[in-house]
Amino acid sequence: MILGLDPGLGTTGWGLIMADGNRLSHIANGQIKTDAKAPLASRLLALDAALTDLILAYKPDGAAVEEVFVNANPQSTLKLGQARGVVLLNAARAGIEVGEYAARLVKKSVVGIGNASKDQVHAMILRLLPGTAISGPDAADALAVAITHAHHSANARRLTL
Amino acid sequence: MILGLDPGLGTTGWGLIMADGNRLSHIANGQIKTDAKAPLASRLLALDAALTDLILAYKPDGAAVEEVFVNANPQSTLKLGQARGVVLLNAARAGIEVGEYAARLVKKSVVGIGNASKDQVHAMILRLLPGTAISGPDAADALAVAITHAHHSANARRLTL
Repeated sequence: MILGLDPGLGTTGWGLIMADGNRLSHIANGQIKTDAKAPLASRLLALDAALTDLILAYKPDGAAVEEVFVNANPQSTLKLGQARGVVLLNAARAGIEVGEYAARLVKKSVVGIGNASKDQVHAMILRLLPGTAISGPDAADALAVAITHAHHSANARRLTL
Repeated sequence: MILGLDPGLGTTGWGLIMADGNRLSHIANGQIKTDAKAPLASRLLALDAALTDLILAYKPDGAAVEEVFVNANPQSTLKLGQARGVVLLNAARAGIEVGEYAARLVKKSVVGIGNASKDQVHAMILRLLPGTAISGPDAADALAVAITHAHHSANARRLTL
């Protein structure tokens, strides 16, 4: 089972799929939200607790994240980095290897072209994982990176362990 | 007991002091280094493990970090953010409140002027905490923010819980 993750301090998307050769099936997806009014450390703690529960419940064998597009806004990059640190730590603590994929490669893997639109990615996820109710845009991104990992896991750049 | 922290992916400085009214005493300080050649998630895991051990061993009552000077280099900001997320999470998991202080306030608290040099801060730490063997520049920064927290804990901006 592959856990795709789209880290964010406000919303972290996640999506779980099963890959059996070229056959993919959807297991679950969701979005972990933290309270924007809460102190930073409490938000990180809430994210950590939700991820720990998720990993304990589903016991994925592998995980995947998108490479970060470093934002022009350094405060946003710092926020994203803090959430991403907690997300990667959770995978590492559970002994799960994390593949990292460039956004272009994710689009190419899911849609077939590297400059696909969000809508194209969304539509293709629904075709690849029929009947899936997608919790939101961050969950869709998480499912897309999980699909990418299923296609490329043999030659992914490894982040973990 | 106050734990000052200077988060970094390569090196995280830490310093523990005891504050009894205006009297400060040094408990311990050090630097947690991670292997630059190891995968990112392993480095975060190593940092997490070292911080967990440190907090379990000393059981500090409070913690403090510097506000981040967001770097012109977004990749550095992302790296720092990932390490800082793990550091703040560790304090939050242990139920320790984290004060956050601007670099200028740290210099002003330790030396008396907001634009003090690194050397002036270092020299003043040795005067305030006589006999202390400082493990390195990041440990010195951590002790400086711990001293700042001791002086300002009543009106610090809270990060945690």
